[in-house]
Formats: sequence, C-alpha cells, structure tokens
Amino acid sequence: MNIKKEILTMAEEAKKAAQILATTNTTVKNNALKEIAQGLKDNLSSLLEANAKDVTQAKEKGLSKAMIDRLTLTETRVQGMINNLYEVISLPDPVGNVAKMWQRPNGLKVGKIRIPLGVIAMVYEARPDATIEAAALCLKAGNSVILRGGSEAINSNLCLGKIMREALDKVGLPQKAIQVVSTTNREAVLALLEMEGYIDLIIPRGGEGLIRFVSEHAKIPVLKHYKGVCHVYVDDKADLKKAEEICFNAKVQRPGVCNAMETMLVHEQVAKNFLPSMLKRFKEAGVEIRGCPKTCAIFPEAKPATEEDWPAEYLDLTLAVKVVANINEAMEHIAKYGSNHTEVIVTEDYTRAWQFLERVDASVVLVNASTRFNDGNQLGLGAEIGISTSKLHAYGPMGLEELTTTKFIVFGQGQIRN
Amino acid sequence: MNIKKEILTMAEEAKKAAQILATTNTTVKNNALKEIAQGLKDNLSSLLEANAKDVTQAKEKGLSKAMIDRLTLTETRVQGMINNLYEVISLPDPVGNVAKMWQRPNGLKVGKIRIPLGVIAMVYEARPDATIEAAALCLKAGNSVILRGGSEAINSNLCLGKIMREALDKVGLPQKAIQVVSTTNREAVLALLEMEGYIDLIIPRGGEGLIRFVSEHAKIPVLKHYKGVCHVYVDDKADLKKAEEICFNAKVQRPGVCNAMETMLVHEQVAKNFLPSMLKRFKEAGVEIRGCPKTCAIFPEAKPATEEDWPAEYLDLTLAVKVVANINEAMEHIAKYGSNHTEVIVTEDYTRAWQFLERVDASVVLVNASTRFNDGNQLGLGAEIGISTSKLHAYGPMGLEELTTTKFIVFGQGQIRN
Repeated sequence: MNIKKEILTMAEEAKKAAQILATTNTTVKNNALKEIAQGLKDNLSSLLEANAKDVTQAKEKGLSKAMIDRLTLTETRVQGMINNLYEVISLPDPVGNVAKMWQRPNGLKVGKIRIPLGVIAMVYEARPDATIEAAALCLKAGNSVILRGGSEAINSNLCLGKIMREALDKVGLPQKAIQVVSTTNREAVLALLEMEGYIDLIIPRGGEGLIRFVSEHAKIPVLKHYKGVCHVYVDDKADLKKAEEICFNAKVQRPGVCNAMETMLVHEQVAKNFLPSMLKRFKEAGVEIRGCPKTCAIFPEAKPATEEDWPAEYLDLTLAVKVVANINEAMEHIAKYGSNHTEVIVTEDYTRAWQFLERVDASVVLVNASTRFNDGNQLGLGAEIGISTSKLHAYGPMGLEELTTTKFIVFGQGQIRN
Repeated sequence: MNIKKEILTMAEEAKKAAQILATTNTTVKNNALKEIAQGLKDNLSSLLEANAKDVTQAKEKGLSKAMIDRLTLTETRVQGMINNLYEVISLPDPVGNVAKMWQRPNGLKVGKIRIPLGVIAMVYEARPDATIEAAALCLKAGNSVILRGGSEAINSNLCLGKIMREALDKVGLPQKAIQVVSTTNREAVLALLEMEGYIDLIIPRGGEGLIRFVSEHAKIPVLKHYKGVCHVYVDDKADLKKAEEICFNAKVQRPGVCNAMETMLVHEQVAKNFLPSMLKRFKEAGVEIRGCPKTCAIFPEAKPATEEDWPAEYLDLTLAVKVVANINEAMEHIAKYGSNHTEVIVTEDYTRAWQFLERVDASVVLVNASTRFNDGNQLGLGAEIGISTSKLHAYGPMGLEELTTTKFIVFGQGQIRN
C-alpha cells in the first residue's frame, strides 16, 4: 500500500473514532488512561526490549549522546510516564463545559459549549515519553490522535502504540483513537499535512527545520513555535538582588530548553553596579558571555557580540548581554529580535512594569520572575502539549483546554427570524 | 513597483501601525470610527461618483443584476454604513479584558489578557459596504487591516480608503492602520497569502472558488467557511406547527444566504401528516422541491432528488427533502452531507434534543429555532466579520472578540524555578 493511501485510511479511521470520543464521558476516558498505565507496567520488559533495539541502532548511526539519552527508556523513566498519566487523569475534563450562556430579547437561550477539536496529528522527535504524553492529553480532551514520532524511536513507539490500543479496547473505546504511523520518512509527514477534512490540527515539536517544513506544506491549521529567544530586561529601578537570582535561574537552571534566557538587557544606569558580580557568577557556572561594547568595557572577559548573537537561540550555556539606554530601547530590541515566546522585566517601578506587560508582544510576559515559568504546569494549566507563539487559537502554553474548541448551542421555543 | 514588493511594504506598514493600535484606548478608536462616519457624510458626492464609475463598468462587462445591485451605493445605503459604524462604536471593546486571574502556590499571579491579533487581511467580493464594516471591526479590536476587495468595486473602495485614512489622521492614528490594495488581480492575493511574520490572519469572504484558492495557497492562518449546507430535522415528537414555521422561515425568508436551509429531513412517522401542507406552502412561495422516493410518493409534484442534491448549497428557492427512519438516520445524513455550519432539530422530546445538540458537529446547533439565527448579531455578539466552520480559534460567527487573542501576564515577586 502506498503511503498516501495508508495515511488516508488512518485519518478516516481517526475521524470515525473521534465521533465516538466526542461524547465519551470523563470516567471512561480516565479508565482508558488507567489501562494504559497498567499496560506500561504489564509490558515493561517487552517495551524495554523494543527500546533497546532503538538505542542500539542509534548508537550504530552515531547519534549524539544527548539524543541517545533522550531516547533511552529505563524502569524509572517508564514509572515517570505512568506518573504523568495519573496527572492527566487528575486534571479536569474541559469537554462539555458551558462557560457562558445568555438570553436574547426574543427568548433564545444561547450558550457556548466546549467540544473536542476532532483529530490531532503530532509530528515530533525521538523522545518516546512524548508518545504517551501527547496521546494522553489528546484522549482526555476527547480527540483522536495520529502520532508520527522520529525514526530513531520507531520500535519503542510501535510497542507503545500496541499497549495503548489494547488499553482502549479494554474499556470499549475504538482502537483507532490512538494510532502510530509506522512509516518514518518525510512522505508520511507530507501525507498527514494534506488531510484537510480529516485532521483538524497538526502540532509539530522538534527542531526549527522540521517545524518550518510542516508550516510550509500544511493545508491544515498548525500550532507551533519556531524558537524561544527570551530576554530579561533589568531596569534601573530593579531590585538588583532579585534581578541576579532571576537572570541566573533563567539562564542556568536548564539552558537547553525554549524558555531559557538567551539575551540579558541591562539599563545603563545600573550596568556598572550589576554586571561585574552577575557576569562573574555566570562565568563561574560555565556560561560564555557575548557582550555589546559597553558590556565588554565593564567586563573585559566577555567576547564581543556580533549581529548574529542577538537573534540567536543558543540552547546552551551562552548568553548575549546588551546595555540599553532605557526601557524603550529594551522593548525595541525585543520587538526586533524576540520570538514572541517569553519576556521578562525586573523592576520595582509600577508604571514601567505595566508598560512592559502591555506593549511587549510575547505569549508570556512576566514581571520579576524567571523566564522558566512559561510552562503549562508552572502556570497552572496542568500538563502541556506544547507552546504556541502564533496568535490564532492559542498563544502560549497549550493544555487540555487548548485541545478543544467551542460550538454554539441554542435553545428555542419556535423562534423564527423577521 | 512589482506587486510582491508593494504588498510587502503595505504589510510592514500595517505591522508598525498595529503596534500603535494595540495600546490605543477605546475612546480614540471610537473617535476614529466617528470620523469615518463623518467622512462618509462629507464626501458623499465624490463617493457616489466613484461608485457610479464602478457600476457603469460593471454594466459594460455584463455583470448579473444581483451583482450590480450589491455593488450600487445610494444615499440610503451610505446612511446604512454610517449606522453600522455607530453600532460598532456602541459595542464593548474586548482588548485589555482579563477574563481570569489566579495565583500559583509560589505566589505568582497569572492572568490572561485579551490583545489584538495584529494585522488582518480581508479578501472579499464586490460589495463596497463590506469595506467599511470589516475595517470598523478590525480597528475596534485594535488590529491593522489590509483590504483587498473585488475589481468591480475598486473605484468605490479606493474612495472609501481615502475617507478612512483622513479619519485616522484626524484622531492621530497611523493612516496605515487601514489600507486598500489597489491591484485587483490574483497575484495581489497570492502575495498577501505569503506574508508570514507580518499578517496574522486572512479572512476570505466570497464564492467557494475564492475561498479554496486562499486556503490552498495561504502560509498564514485562514478563518473561513466554504458553504452552508444547513438542515432542519423534523422529529416525530415535533410540534408540527412550530416545525412548519421554522422550516418555512429557514428556507424562504432569505434564500440566498449561507444560513438558509438547503435540506429538510422528516421523520417517517410524521411525514404523511407534515409534508403535504408544508410542501404546498413551499410550492406557493415558489420553492422547487427535490424529494427522496418517499417524499415524491407523498407529494407527487416534487422532482426526484439525485445524489447531487444532498450536498448542494442552492442559495436559491430550491429545497431537498428526505424522509428518514429516525434521529440517527438524520444525524448520519447531516454528518455525511452537512458543512459544519448550522443544524436544527425540531422536537419536544428532551432526550433527543440533547442527543442532537451534543452529537451534531456544526458551529451552531439549534433546538426549535430557525437556521437563520446563525449570525453574530442574532446570537448577541454584535456585528460579525464572518462565520468560521473550521474549529481552530473560532467556530461559528466571529465578532470583535474573535478578532483578538490572549496572552499570559505574570506578576512575580522575584520567583525562580527549582
């Protein structure tokens, strides 16, 4: 069977399953998630075996140590997946909520009821725990999901797919509600992107190349972020103790993720006071500093920054530092080089805090807190399926509610229009 | 200047203007709308003159009477445009609303604040009143707009563009907040569709061909509906008096619009009772009936329906009629042939009403009311910019709120992540 036909069949089956999921109540969906957790326990050895095949092949292919680490499953990591499933079980089900209802002058009662999106396709990288996480969130929100993970994890993913199918079957839900694509080339992705009328949403997660490929070819709505070039602006009215802790946390706590700080902007009035001890602390933590001329003048150990540093997402222990004249220059820099992801101001000044909150165009804008809080869990949405930096449908971390939409329901008593 | 460059310049200017509009308060935006209303009054004669040119050319080209009617402006119609502007002025401004705010265990205060989308491009047909309506809604929601109307209305649209620019200027807002594309070929549309990073949303309004063209080529989110194949299902537990009034209104009150009924589904238990008088009334109103075999047996004047009739959007005094065995057959028919637009059940049965409301996948689902209520004004959203039948971002009529999004704002006191 050619790949287009195979994907079309999967999409048709997913759509049928979605119609059933849409009116499946929360208890049944939670039971399915519990069965998946049980399945992971019961099939631990065959899962680890399948994963070992992936890891061996990855080593043969010479993949990086970091990638092999992300790919590798252990008993502890599988327990982590089970814990995540129970976390999703504990989250409230958004489906069926009527957030508001109102009455029209002619007596029509109009409400907006939350419904699943339908069929979601996930296109992602090698991590096998993402397979369970994405499937769990889509299922809980009443959606079918088609999972197309990276080729490196194909044996693990097919095994996880089997565990999930069996779990669905046990609680009487259609097996096609969660499907794993067995073909891992780009053709399979292309075929998914053309399933308008069957797939309602594509969520790509991975490198910028993959995400651009998906965006360019999709005929279906895509929720994504390309990259996180996050700034912390230290105002001259900042509490410099808070500023130091926030900047250090934003850069060093986990430098390889999208909500880590990449550029620090410092008001010139406090640069001499703030930068020497701050940059020394970064240096001691292994952070390479790339500074503007003023930064280098204050802290000669810094490398001079080039124009490439300002839009860079290092995802590493590297930091660009710029001294700015005022909040306006900071906001202009952010508007020019930022990625609409996460932006922070550190200040004790009330008016500037609000200027920054209102004017900076980013999915999450914070005052006096670390960039690292742009995360569904940290902001209180529960588990997240990704972060969106485009404004349609969702802007920022996407939890269960962002995997749903609303339709209008209208209760009449025979009304007609004049 | 070639068209791609021209559109890029417009898009860049629109983005700059959007940054100003995003923090412009409601009073200033309302003042701009009042100045546009005043401008329409003051420039009435030059507007009617420009429009007369369009009408003359349209007649020379041999456009249909209906199209020429939609194109033609009169003093009364301009007054209608002014009234619409005052209606938009009276609507509450969604921007800046914080619908909810909560506190995290670490003391972070997290809110979702409503913000404009940014830059919206409208691609639409000949009606010049749409130019004012779309611009007014986009402006009120804090968005820049690029308007690309049909070639038939170009003289009217350019004149309206000038009036709006002058109005923006009078209140100190950037003229580039509302721009009219002067090139009316498809290349201009194509160029708009590729302005990722500048334009945040495309809204096409017009025939299915135009909308498919936009959807296929857009690299930017599109909100649209292709067509409205709306059904009324008359259950055997219906109050047949209500059913007759609702069906008649849904078909006849304004047959040329997307929320008119195209197919009537009737439970077989009431078909013999309901159809003869109902179809006679339709016949007398000039409606052509295309019936399934059972319908034709009951009402021999009906033409036999073919397979093409079930997915048809007639937009005319033509109606497909099918007798069904029960609510399930009705819902299956709707799932197969419907367009996710507007669906109605007429019943007095509580359980069936809820079954229909929950299971039917359409942007507006009604019990005991006419399909014609799928309209932003009728449902209480105020003026609408269109109806979306895709589920991302908005599903159903789109008012001011649907022209905005939310971002997260976070108030910290020095929090860092562990």
